[in-house]
Amino acid sequence: MMTVNNITISKTTSKKEKPDQTQLGFGQYFTDHMFILDYTEGKGWHDPRIVPYQPITLEPSAMIFHYGQTVFEGMKAYLSEDGDIHLFRPEKNIQRLNRSNDRMRIPEVDETLALQAIKELVKVDADWVPSEPGTSLYIRPYIISTEPFLGVAPSKHYKFMVILSPVGAYYKEGINPVKIAVENEFVRAVKGGTGEAKTAGNYASSLKAQALVASQGYAQVMWLDGIEKKYIEEVGSMNVFFKIDGEVVTPELNGSILEGVTRNSVMELLKHWGITVTERKITVEEIFEAHKNGKLEEAFGSGTAAVISPIGTLAWDGKEIVINDSKTGEVSKKLYDTLTNIQYGKETDVFDWIVKLER
Amino acid sequence: MMTVNNITISKTTSKKEKPDQTQLGFGQYFTDHMFILDYTEGKGWHDPRIVPYQPITLEPSAMIFHYGQTVFEGMKAYLSEDGDIHLFRPEKNIQRLNRSNDRMRIPEVDETLALQAIKELVKVDADWVPSEPGTSLYIRPYIISTEPFLGVAPSKHYKFMVILSPVGAYYKEGINPVKIAVENEFVRAVKGGTGEAKTAGNYASSLKAQALVASQGYAQVMWLDGIEKKYIEEVGSMNVFFKIDGEVVTPELNGSILEGVTRNSVMELLKHWGITVTERKITVEEIFEAHKNGKLEEAFGSGTAAVISPIGTLAWDGKEIVINDSKTGEVSKKLYDTLTNIQYGKETDVFDWIVKLER
Ligand SMILES: Cc1ncc(COP(=O)(O)O)c(C=O)c1O
Ligand SMILES: Cc1ncc(COP(=O)(O)O)c(C=O)c1O
Repeated sequence: MMTVNNITISKTTSKKEKPDQTQLGFGQYFTDHMFILDYTEGKGWHDPRIVPYQPITLEPSAMIFHYGQTVFEGMKAYLSEDGDIHLFRPEKNIQRLNRSNDRMRIPEVDETLALQAIKELVKVDADWVPSEPGTSLYIRPYIISTEPFLGVAPSKHYKFMVILSPVGAYYKEGINPVKIAVENEFVRAVKGGTGEAKTAGNYASSLKAQALVASQGYAQVMWLDGIEKKYIEEVGSMNVFFKIDGEVVTPELNGSILEGVTRNSVMELLKHWGITVTERKITVEEIFEAHKNGKLEEAFGSGTAAVISPIGTLAWDGKEIVINDSKTGEVSKKLYDTLTNIQYGKETDVFDWIVKLER
Repeated sequence: MMTVNNITISKTTSKKEKPDQTQLGFGQYFTDHMFILDYTEGKGWHDPRIVPYQPITLEPSAMIFHYGQTVFEGMKAYLSEDGDIHLFRPEKNIQRLNRSNDRMRIPEVDETLALQAIKELVKVDADWVPSEPGTSLYIRPYIISTEPFLGVAPSKHYKFMVILSPVGAYYKEGINPVKIAVENEFVRAVKGGTGEAKTAGNYASSLKAQALVASQGYAQVMWLDGIEKKYIEEVGSMNVFFKIDGEVVTPELNGSILEGVTRNSVMELLKHWGITVTERKITVEEIFEAHKNGKLEEAFGSGTAAVISPIGTLAWDGKEIVINDSKTGEVSKKLYDTLTNIQYGKETDVFDWIVKLER
């Protein structure tokens, strides 16, 4: 046992066998260690520790099972060309975690400690960062409410944990466009709700619509605003961009859209390249209209998992449009290449986005 | 070990000490046993069993901790005058559980088995049904997604559990009206969302608004619709009724309101008594207008916990109205008395609502 930055580290005595790096998939394998930090009312957050990866034991009345007070984050560690481990803008995820905490009435975590915890954990499990092209180590920080009490009130106890999962290349045969269907019945989030927080309930509520469009041959749902069912919000678990007549637009943050780290990075890159990018309200009607007038050049989702996911086909209200001949657009491709190149250290990190782990 | 109705029963060898019945509160104490039923994709629900009350052990990647796919129910067992144990319309809760399951993409449970499970569990822990006036045994059936997988998709494994908690009298000094504030910023649920399902995310999302109104001296939030913020939906975790000019109205079910068992029972009773009760859209403006015209006679919430909770003060948009001099109205009182009398077997159960447990 040792202590680094106040974090106690107890290493496992029996390391697991590593899975085949070409068959990783997503979120199926977990590493040898995890980080845990406890919260007790009156005492605050305490006992930061890295321990062997192990099951969690909770009372059947633990609040997480009943009232869903919980938040999470998702980010990745990348093995760079020269053998370093890279995190991509981790402070953004930690800031978002605290914004989610605020919405869900979970006590905020110390951002410096949270970043240290993630760094130390990845260092302890550094041999789990995969090296096959396109692979990475997915990092999942999350907080659950653990007080054994049945009643709708903020929990008095929480656990902040970080687990790690080596994940495969999202695109095995190169980036390729998907078919998306606009959702008219079900809603992911609404103004005044929890859409801008990364919290479990938003994902649970999306499953039914996702299953419905999947049965019709679409990969993901495009979510509209819950009030007028007119304005585009997100696509699946990604933010969304459209290139119309040379300019790029993305839905403005309105309280029901998650503020993606990739979304922000895409906007920074576009500005850097001199391409106009505007955050504003976008109706699905406008997108279909732009397509009709031959002005809809590209459409894509952005998120940590896929980085950039081009939209090849968009269905809405019985109509279907094919965007850019269902090929990956020039800007989509350039964004994907630049972002992944920065992440894997193949391109200069002009924005200082990378946090290198000293090993 | 024995088996009843296919349910295996393993009794505890060390019973807990029972808490003081005058100090029970709500959801703090749990009985000696719990019911568990497992679901595995391909195999369905299997292994119904009653076991000693015990912690749940799950992988850190169990989906419940990340994506919130879960549903629950809440009902009570009452000790009747003549020593029988009464359940109140339990089939309604089980049907609602399956409606919630459908919305959350959780496989439906066999309703006969679920009812058997609840009955057998309460029988095993019959000595936990408290006898002090107004006390009862709260029954919490719930389903959690347990597959160890990080990805937004329905889980392939679930656990259906039932736990029991002896709870105190909701009103220690008689039924008394509370102060309620209409919420204009935050939203509990919206059409197309999960409001009509009894699922964790709806409750997590309500905490922030609840804390805000509590800090201003109000007991609960009155929720408006998420679209126009005009129509009244619920109050706290209760349905809501208004008596205006001799008639009773309640918000119509619209997809974002939970269909309460108490709500339904209130409507049945009112009809039985010849009082007109209408389900329709109700604006908060209309309620304030009715008050101004001297026509707002009563307002109350309905739910399993409080049965009937009269609203004495209602705040909205900087205005505050006092309803019926902040006294419990005649109809509110009669509903409360009749419902609790039926539950505790003090009044004829003309509607056949009570399910008696043979001991
Ligand atoms: C609902 C939702 N929108 C958008 C995103 C994209 O965010 P980021 O780019 O930070 O991964 C995610 C994934 O994190 C998400 O879950
Ligand atoms: C959101 C919400 N509305 C209404 C109710 C009232 O329902 P019931 O009368 O079935 O207890 C409850 C409690 O169960 C609830 O959680």
